[in-house]
Amino acid sequence: MTDGTYASAGVDIDAKARALASLRARIRATHGPQVLGDVGHFGGLYALPGAGDNVLVASIDGVGTKLKLALALGTADAHAGIGRDLVHHSVNDILCCGARPHFFLDYLALGRSNAELIAAVVGGVADACTALGVALIGGETAELPGIYREGDYDLAGCIVGSVARGRVLDGRAMRPGDVLLGLPSTGLHTNGYSLARAVFALDGPPDAVREALAQPLSGTRATLGAALLAEHRCYLPDLTAALDAGLLHALAHITGGGLVDNVPRVLPAGCAARFDPALWSVPPVFAAIEERGHVAPMEMYRVFNMGLGMVAVVSPEAVARVRSLIPQAVLVGEIISRGDGPAVRIAGVTEGD
Amino acid sequence: MTDGTYASAGVDIDAKARALASLRARIRATHGPQVLGDVGHFGGLYALPGAGDNVLVASIDGVGTKLKLALALGTADAHAGIGRDLVHHSVNDILCCGARPHFFLDYLALGRSNAELIAAVVGGVADACTALGVALIGGETAELPGIYREGDYDLAGCIVGSVARGRVLDGRAMRPGDVLLGLPSTGLHTNGYSLARAVFALDGPPDAVREALAQPLSGTRATLGAALLAEHRCYLPDLTAALDAGLLHALAHITGGGLVDNVPRVLPAGCAARFDPALWSVPPVFAAIEERGHVAPMEMYRVFNMGLGMVAVVSPEAVARVRSLIPQAVLVGEIISRGDGPAVRIAGVTEGD
Repeated sequence: MTDGTYASAGVDIDAKARALASLRARIRATHGPQVLGDVGHFGGLYALPGAGDNVLVASIDGVGTKLKLALALGTADAHAGIGRDLVHHSVNDILCCGARPHFFLDYLALGRSNAELIAAVVGGVADACTALGVALIGGETAELPGIYREGDYDLAGCIVGSVARGRVLDGRAMRPGDVLLGLPSTGLHTNGYSLARAVFALDGPPDAVREALAQPLSGTRATLGAALLAEHRCYLPDLTAALDAGLLHALAHITGGGLVDNVPRVLPAGCAARFDPALWSVPPVFAAIEERGHVAPMEMYRVFNMGLGMVAVVSPEAVARVRSLIPQAVLVGEIISRGDGPAVRIAGVTEGD
Repeated sequence: MTDGTYASAGVDIDAKARALASLRARIRATHGPQVLGDVGHFGGLYALPGAGDNVLVASIDGVGTKLKLALALGTADAHAGIGRDLVHHSVNDILCCGARPHFFLDYLALGRSNAELIAAVVGGVADACTALGVALIGGETAELPGIYREGDYDLAGCIVGSVARGRVLDGRAMRPGDVLLGLPSTGLHTNGYSLARAVFALDGPPDAVREALAQPLSGTRATLGAALLAEHRCYLPDLTAALDAGLLHALAHITGGGLVDNVPRVLPAGCAARFDPALWSVPPVFAAIEERGHVAPMEMYRVFNMGLGMVAVVSPEAVARVRSLIPQAVLVGEIISRGDGPAVRIAGVTEGD
């Protein structure tokens, strides 16, 4: 079913990267002087004329195939969790630019309208927005028979926030010797589910999937289902004080592409990030995926967050203060000079391992 | 295959409305004082603190099952057209609040990454943005095997613009006696395709769909395919001067729900809109759908734009000036006192016809 790579599970990260590389010039052609920064950051930056010192920051995203698990479970709570996941993911993305969220819009597309399903999913979105002080100012619920199977759906959403121009997190102050702090994830968050589903044989009929999800996860007292459906953690409450104090050099939200592809999005030229996995506990769900799926260690770090949902870069002088503000932050590595090596290095794990 | 109603074609507008009604309170609970207006307008309004007189206006939307036709054709041009459609649709939506667009973000989800397909769709989005002066500042391309069939995709996008607070189009100045001006559509734009596909038997295998689309459309020299894939017209260039001059009382973008459901979104209490279909030419594609599908006339007005892609409400005094600024605008009806009747009346067409 899988040879332990993401491509064999039906996701070809490189094909997508090739396509987007070919589009870069056409996307840049849409950018006037209001657009700050370039393609590829966690949020797009737009300086609204007449908005003074404020820079708008926006991001759009989906939830990935985690929703296949919610569909197999079929409970209102699982669907509401998907809604909350999307909001949390989106808020985390614009946090990486230093932005606080203002408003959100959701797009829910289904094979056939189902009042309970819509209420559960959009209700989850709304409740997460309320909890975080984000206004849900728009949404579209689209019925697309012929694209989605009868009970299936997809969910995407767009977040808009802002940051004072001088407080945009652009990694400019980062230096070799800076410290990498990791914030614990609750599990896979919303990435890597195509591979995880292949590894645990979770793409069969709903009955079989429910039975598999009810099994205990080895090394834990939790079920596989509880581990895989754990809510995407939102780091806004953790990070607000450190952002307000201007203590962070960069933030990277560890989403699709793992540490390997996400951390480079915030590294300036000349800097590389060196992680030492001995410094944090990789949650049991990742060990189970690696073992059962015979997934190469480096592939694990290219697909999953491996227990770190957000990585902060701070100067050595600021570490103590940041850790006092974010007690859960764990020292996980350091910024080094890039030299000729890869932008992200995982100690003890090399390509092909 | 269809009894001529949208529900029989697999789309249940009422089920969706019921679900959203149940969510209204939870959505309103997310709204602080920055949110102006209520749920249900064409755009959400947000007064960004520190942004002075500017009100942000945002909308999220998809393209509906028009993309099934692009998939059957399978050409890069058809897919790029879907990308342009989405941008044009979105810009039209926030125009209804009086807003000019600033930036856009797209969400493309596919069954499997295909570099040519991604380049065509996102390229269409980017080119439409460039033509309209909109910055494409973000996007997500998601591979979701298990939700989408191998070659299928869905496309959604979010537009953000702004308007000066005193220039928000909220219908407040509308009075009985105001004039309804219609701006011609190029065809179905992006709504009603599930019914149209059912009527023309366009949901079979791609070969059969391509053959059907190559047939001439009765009463025209065009093919059915050319009529059905005609680009969603963007009304920004048409409307800019009239908006700048403050000449419009309201604008309604005629999308899913047709004149019957979209015009009420901008009517103040006490006002109804009376359209006289004798005043404009309904394009042949709608007559063909009505005849071939035995669709009731009122159902046609509940599903399709019937040739009017945008409806403007203007005072009788302003009509001449607006028509000089928008030569294509056609007088199509008037605002009347609501009384006990429906919010939208189509002369000669009654419910159940």
